[in-house]
Amino acid sequence: MTDLNTSVLLVIDVQVGIDALFSSERNNLDAESNIQKLINNWRERGVEIIHVKHNSTAADSPLRPGQAGNDFKPEGLPLATEQLFEKTVNSAFIGTGLEAYLKERGVTDLVIVGLTTDHCISTSTRMAGNLGFDVSLVSDATATFGRTAPDGETYSAEQVHKVNLLSLHDEFCRVVTTEEVLQRVT
Amino acid sequence: MTDLNTSVLLVIDVQVGIDALFSSERNNLDAESNIQKLINNWRERGVEIIHVKHNSTAADSPLRPGQAGNDFKPEGLPLATEQLFEKTVNSAFIGTGLEAYLKERGVTDLVIVGLTTDHCISTSTRMAGNLGFDVSLVSDATATFGRTAPDGETYSAEQVHKVNLLSLHDEFCRVVTTEEVLQRVT
Repeated sequence: MTDLNTSVLLVIDVQVGIDALFSSERNNLDAESNIQKLINNWRERGVEIIHVKHNSTAADSPLRPGQAGNDFKPEGLPLATEQLFEKTVNSAFIGTGLEAYLKERGVTDLVIVGLTTDHCISTSTRMAGNLGFDVSLVSDATATFGRTAPDGETYSAEQVHKVNLLSLHDEFCRVVTTEEVLQRVT
Repeated sequence: MTDLNTSVLLVIDVQVGIDALFSSERNNLDAESNIQKLINNWRERGVEIIHVKHNSTAADSPLRPGQAGNDFKPEGLPLATEQLFEKTVNSAFIGTGLEAYLKERGVTDLVIVGLTTDHCISTSTRMAGNLGFDVSLVSDATATFGRTAPDGETYSAEQVHKVNLLSLHDEFCRVVTTEEVLQRVT
């Protein structure tokens, strides 16, 4: 299992525009406050935090650079001393130097938080696991939205969230909670 | 949308040992016969088929090379003239030359089939989309197994399958059916 004490905290797409991407209901409204708790803990312990920002290339996206939605939410605001990687697709490992950055520094363990569960978080977690990192994914420090299937059937945000996590658990990562992480780090 | 007529058919992990990986029920028992129909159609039209095989590195995996489970199922057996990429993780794009092979040949469109929906198929589809390929994913030419969430709640194979597909649809790929594909190719 991931060594939480030495894990780098990878904070993905905690940006204002995420909530404007979808008109459906969202789950885990406390995700941002949990992310803030984890960031605060990592800063107190002096362990590295890496931020990932989505710069959409879609003309009408609230996450396009220059739009207010591209800004970080207050809970995920990086310090000037913290590393930032910018991306244009879901995966934090495609088109960024993140993999090389981590491997050059001997980082093996990651704790992943951010938005959204089934798009950027799932994709980044899958790639992190397949690239050889040990990953803890924090279930209540991520969230998603209700979605409609190709056949028109609708699924609640909580259903989408839970099923996506169980498909990741024990195959690409270990799914944990904010409280579990905070209890186990020293 | 993907140009189905020129799309390369990417057939992932249609191997005997897949069914021995999980003790829970499986959905889409016709997935292999649908894969066979698509392979036959691609061969008749003379369009490229690429096969991907999983060589597990886990000591106890039925997909480990040398085990009977590592063999292809009859419906997914490659011809000697068809390209084969071998992998050791979920993604068909990690540790293989697949991305370079496709890009060197100017391939832009892919039709993805194989096993299982939420592990190797989802991961490979996400990476294909993020690497810039246009992907059609065939919902009834993939399948998965019932799974248990970290909190102990169980989900049927069909629930896991459907939710994983809706998280991919319109973000990483277009989800289609075998019949839709066969009706649209000429």
